[in-house]
Parts: sequence; structure tokens; C-alpha cells
Amino acid sequence: MHELNFLTREQISDIEENFTTPVYVYSEEKLIEAADNFLAFPHAFGHTVRYAMKANANINILKIFKNKGIKIDCSSEYEAYRALQAGYRWEDLQISGQETPRNLVDLIEKWVFMVATSLKQIEEVGKIKSGIKIWVRLNPGMGSWAFKAISTGWETSAFGIWHEYVPEVKELAERYNLEISKIHIHIGSENTPESWTESASIGLNFISQFESATILDMGGWFKKAIMPYEQSADLQAIWKSVAGKFEEFYEKTGRKVHLEVEPGKYMVINSCSVIAKIDDIVDTWKNGYKFIRTNTWMTEMPRVPMYGVQQPVIVLNDSEETEEYVVVGHCCESWDILTTKLYSQEELEAISLPKVSIWDTIVVEWTWAYNSSMSMKNYNSFPEAGELLIKSNWEIVEMRKRQEVSDIWRNEIEVI
Amino acid sequence: MHELNFLTREQISDIEENFTTPVYVYSEEKLIEAADNFLAFPHAFGHTVRYAMKANANINILKIFKNKGIKIDCSSEYEAYRALQAGYRWEDLQISGQETPRNLVDLIEKWVFMVATSLKQIEEVGKIKSGIKIWVRLNPGMGSWAFKAISTGWETSAFGIWHEYVPEVKELAERYNLEISKIHIHIGSENTPESWTESASIGLNFISQFESATILDMGGWFKKAIMPYEQSADLQAIWKSVAGKFEEFYEKTGRKVHLEVEPGKYMVINSCSVIAKIDDIVDTWKNGYKFIRTNTWMTEMPRVPMYGVQQPVIVLNDSEETEEYVVVGHCCESWDILTTKLYSQEELEAISLPKVSIWDTIVVEWTWAYNSSMSMKNYNSFPEAGELLIKSNWEIVEMRKRQEVSDIWRNEIEVI
Repeated sequence: MHELNFLTREQISDIEENFTTPVYVYSEEKLIEAADNFLAFPHAFGHTVRYAMKANANINILKIFKNKGIKIDCSSEYEAYRALQAGYRWEDLQISGQETPRNLVDLIEKWVFMVATSLKQIEEVGKIKSGIKIWVRLNPGMGSWAFKAISTGWETSAFGIWHEYVPEVKELAERYNLEISKIHIHIGSENTPESWTESASIGLNFISQFESATILDMGGWFKKAIMPYEQSADLQAIWKSVAGKFEEFYEKTGRKVHLEVEPGKYMVINSCSVIAKIDDIVDTWKNGYKFIRTNTWMTEMPRVPMYGVQQPVIVLNDSEETEEYVVVGHCCESWDILTTKLYSQEELEAISLPKVSIWDTIVVEWTWAYNSSMSMKNYNSFPEAGELLIKSNWEIVEMRKRQEVSDIWRNEIEVI
Repeated sequence: MHELNFLTREQISDIEENFTTPVYVYSEEKLIEAADNFLAFPHAFGHTVRYAMKANANINILKIFKNKGIKIDCSSEYEAYRALQAGYRWEDLQISGQETPRNLVDLIEKWVFMVATSLKQIEEVGKIKSGIKIWVRLNPGMGSWAFKAISTGWETSAFGIWHEYVPEVKELAERYNLEISKIHIHIGSENTPESWTESASIGLNFISQFESATILDMGGWFKKAIMPYEQSADLQAIWKSVAGKFEEFYEKTGRKVHLEVEPGKYMVINSCSVIAKIDDIVDTWKNGYKFIRTNTWMTEMPRVPMYGVQQPVIVLNDSEETEEYVVVGHCCESWDILTTKLYSQEELEAISLPKVSIWDTIVVEWTWAYNSSMSMKNYNSFPEAGELLIKSNWEIVEMRKRQEVSDIWRNEIEVI
């Protein structure tokens, strides 16, 4: 059985009285704590924390991080506009997208930092303006992972420029007189101090090949344990050993390299819960399962059906009996299921919960990043859920209104 | 190599000139054809076609089907409002959701047909109004499928009332004086005439247990071949053999049963294409892959990463050489991939395409239903794509505007 993360029972009652479920609830305190955690880790010659805003781009989350001095990684030019709305300046942003921004000329005029993720992107930047700084993402051809679907550092990944293209990268930089001042590598997924140290060595080896590079950006993906069988990455241990590598590199080369990291999930995972209701309980007889039907799921938390990850579910009642349940969502979609076998998209797994009743409240904890931002909103025409913030002074405020149903079709044009 | 389904090269150029890609394009002609196909199938004592609107709820698609006399299946009360916008009347709709509608009292006052999918739903309806008709969805405990994730007729499914609860269903109907006039079964997925005949037998056996039932609703899931290794369901063969079962039943019992079906996907799958662009080409060296990066994917077509289904991709160029490519999307998300091994969420599969260049146009065909409606819109802050309709008179009109980027955060409230 799991326990409530940051919410209290009183807050939950209060929220249920005043807002519609399902609803995302964030904790300002926890968001600040996550920021502080990252800002405080050991480093050799300075470091920058850059929030990968695709994890959750609500203006208030961005502002909380901005107030802490955290920079931004944008996956698209549209994210850049969103960050500007939150008060960020162009120079606080980098754009490191798979797709080349459509308004690249304009962006370069504004001096946004472009992380080129392909040879073509270097060339496009160079054609627009020479003599400027450019950052480059390389695919180092190594990685660690829990399962292949979330790996980003192998030959199965389209992210970044394959490391054997370094000569071509240098040739393009020279041709367009671009100064490569940052090397970006993002190994991806589930990692240990050893894998980060290895990754730092590889990154520093790239740095040694680019005379103009002063920054190594090591990307994100820091494992956060949310289920009992998981283990969190030890950030202090990771960054201590990485700092050692940076110092070694300085001793050998005389070059002091600045470290950047781009946490996304890890910055918000600890600070979000979803409050929902049990709408129904059905079963499929003696050899079947007992199902809890909720008023949420794939519409708010798509990563479970997408990747088969598991999430802690807490039922708020005082039952002392337990039962085995499969928890499902409210969509007419067969795979709108919460309790799957780990990483499976085919097999259910019943979990043990206090014996539930219809209308019981459930809380889904550690609802990642990438849930609100990636949600399959409006499937079955369910309106997008609201987002609340529990402020540091304990005030509970709405930071995104629940969508009006008519908003769903507001862009439609009647032509029949 | 696949061929264009309904678009011509001229139409595609025209669209690229006047609209932003990625863009969904629908064919009015094909939508009408799908409606006619369903309306024309053999039946014994009358039939009703009910469009499962979760497949695609654009007002224009709903109006095209309304004009053909097709009824509606809603998966939520919100879908009902959307259907009303399109000119449907309450009595044309049924609501058959996993979640009990929040405004059930109001809905029952309006005489919407409720398909109870649990014992609790029967009871809730009965408590609001007795003496009315109610429809009941039963889980027959059998099914056929391609893979388990999309099965809906076994003990692993939370959909409908398990068949062994028939006595409880009858008891509740009696207690609240409800007239059960339709039995609904939906076996789900990949089916042959034999499986539909078997399903009809099971459904008619339920009918024989409910004296008041005059309609058997057999749900949807008609297999449509979109890849060369797939085979379409033979609708004529299926419904001919089903009609035989209904006639047999009449001979035995003197009861003429009306047939209902609820196609969703099959009504729209043939009439939608997505036009997109190749934004980049990258590779991971000799032992790796060649990747095509597009300006679309999980943001418009979530079913590939969700279920590992495969979609035909057509490249519009005149290259005579071919190459093997992995096609990926534009999101910073490792599993934003089009070409996966069938039903895999872990393994890539390169496909053979004409040798491509950056900026080539690609068309993704048979883009299902459930893409626009289920899309992970706004992930990475990409605006929701527009939807076009090619009208029967060949006019190309916008039926949903591409979203303005500021719409993405319009419900946010600044509280920091």
C-alpha cells in the first residue's frame, strides 16, 4: 500500500468540495525543493540547470523555476513562445527540437540558442547567419535503459548527430564560421553514477575535439523511484563523480568545462498528484477480475497505456479488508488501463487495495511529468482536466481551469 | 510500396500551397460510401447503423452521417452535446459509457437511450425514473482478437455486465420497473463471419432470456485491411450469415429481432489521410538506421506508439531508387516512431521507400479513426493540426482550423 505524497486528507476534501475531479494538483513547495536539489549538486567549474519544459509547461511551473534562476530547454519554437509568456528572455532559452523550427530566421535574429540535432540544422543556421555560436547535440552510440522504447543513445535513436559525423560537424562549422560552444549529449533513461561518469568521459572526449566548446550539456533522465521495486538515482553521487571527471579533464587539458543538465520529469514528478473518483465496480465472475472504474486515466495519464509503467494508487477510505483489483479508466478504449504488468501493453495485473466502494476518492501519486503535457485530451470528448497549485502558504488555487466542453469544437467550421 | 487512397497529386499540391502541414484530409465521397456500405448490408428484420462517434467527432462528419440516417453511439455525455450541435436529436443518441454520466437526471428527462454497462448504472437509472426503457450491455465472455490489448469480450475486460449476472440484471429491471428493450454485446476486434455468427447466437440467447428485448446490438470492430498482410472483414458475408441466425431465431421463437451495429473506425478509416513533410534525414552510421524525421506523428497519430500498429506511408517524389528507412515523428519523445515491428512497443522496423530528400511530401494513408480524436495534441506545445474536407464537388474546405499556439495556454491562470 502506498502513502499520500504531499496532500493531506483535509486538502483533498477541500479540493473535492470546490473543484471538479479528475484534477491535477501540484505543490509549489515540492517544485521549489526539486529546483533546489538540482541547483545544489556538486560540480567542478560551474553548472546550469535547464528545465526540459515539455515535461509540464504550465506558466506557473515555468515562473517558479524562473524565479530560482533555472534556464529552459524547448523542444519546439512553440515552447519558446510559452516560456516567453512566463517572463523568460530569449537568451534563457535553447531550442533543441527534432523538427527544425519553421521561423528559424526570426529565432536567430532574436539570439535564441539553437542546439543543432542534425547536420542539416547546422547548415540552416549557418546559411542564415555566420559568426555566431551554435550548440550541437551528438548521439554517442551508448546508453543505459530500462527498456528499449525510452532509449535515446544508440543506433536505434534518431536523436542528435551520430558521433562518427564529428568531422562533418567541424567542416560545416568552419564553412559557415559558426562557433560550437556547447556539446550536448543525452543518453537517456535509468542511470547509475557509473553510467553518468562514462557518459561524462564520452562528452569530454567530444569537447576535446572542439576547441571552441566550453560547455558540456549532459541532458536529463534521472531515475526517480515511484514504485517499491525502483531505486532513485543518487544525484549527489552522480554529480560528485562527474565533477571528478571534469577536474581530471582540466588537469590534462587546462580547459575548465561548464556543466549543464536538463532535467524534465525529475523536476516535477515529486510535485504532482491526480485526484479522481471511483465511479463503478464491476467483475468478471469467479475466474475473472474485480475492476475499479475511475473517472480518469488515459485522458489525464497517458504514459501508463503508452509505456506500461506503473503508478501508485491510493484509495481514501478506512477499510481494513483488502482486495485485488484491476483499475481502469473512463474511456471506451480497451487499453485504458492503469494496472498492467510492468512495461506490458498486453497483460493486466491486479493490485491489492483496501476494499473500495463506489464514490471513494483515489489519488494517483507521482504522476510524472509528461502526463498533463502529453495527455490524450478530449478523447471520448472528455474536457481537459483542471490544474491546481498548493502554494507555499497552503492556499489552493486554480492554475488551469477545467476546459469548457464547447472549447473542444471551437476551431471546427461547419461546411456541410 | 503503397498507393494514394483518394487524394490526387494535384490536390496535394493545392493543399500544401494553401494550408499548413501536418493536416488531416477527409473525403466526403468516401464517408458517404462507408455509410452506404453499412446501410446496405443484409439483415432479417430491419437494422440500424449507429456511428460510434468517438472515432471522429468533427461536426461535419457527424452531419454527413446524419444526412444518411445514421444514429449515434456516445461514449460520454459530452459526446452527446457534440452530436446535438450537429443537429442530432436526443432520441437519435445512446450513451454507453464506462463512466456514468454526471448529469444522468437531466439526460433521462430528455429521453436519451442509456445503455447500462454495469449493474450500478441500471440501478441509477431506475432510481431516477421507473417505467422507462433501458438498454443493457453484456460481456459474453468470448471474443476474437489480434492481440489482447484490444479485446473487449473476455474476463480481462471491464466493459459491460458479465453474462453470469443476467439474473441480477432481471431482478433490478423488475425492482425498478424498467423495460430492457435492447441487449448490447460488443465482442471486439478482428473478425470472421464465423465469429460474428457465433456472437449472434450468443446475443440471441440473451434475447431469449429477456422477453421485452426487441433489438440486438452487436457493437463494432470490423477489420479493415490497410497493410498488405491484412484482410478486410467481408461485411456482406458476415451479415448474411448473421441474418440467417436471426431468421432461425424467429422460426424457433416467433420473435423478430431488430439488428443494430456500431461501426466507428470502419466508417472513417477509408476517408482520411494525413499530409506531412519530411523535415530531416539522419542516420546512425553503417550498422545503424537511416531515419526520416517528419513534422508529424504522435501529435496527430497516437495509435502507432500506443499499439504498435503499422500505417502505409507514401513519399511523393519520382525517385526510382529505394532505401530502407525508419520513419519518426517531431516530438522529443523516444517512442514517437512510425515504423515499429508489428504490435511492438520496443522494436523498430525499417521500411522500403523511394529514396527521399528533405522537404519531400509524405502521405500517411488510412489514418484510422481514433487519430484526430485520440491525439496527444499539444505535446511539445505543437498546435493541434487542421482538418480539411474534400467535398463531393471536389472543393477543398477547412473543417477545423489549425489551432493558434496561444490557444494551448488559454485556460491557464497566472498565480505566481
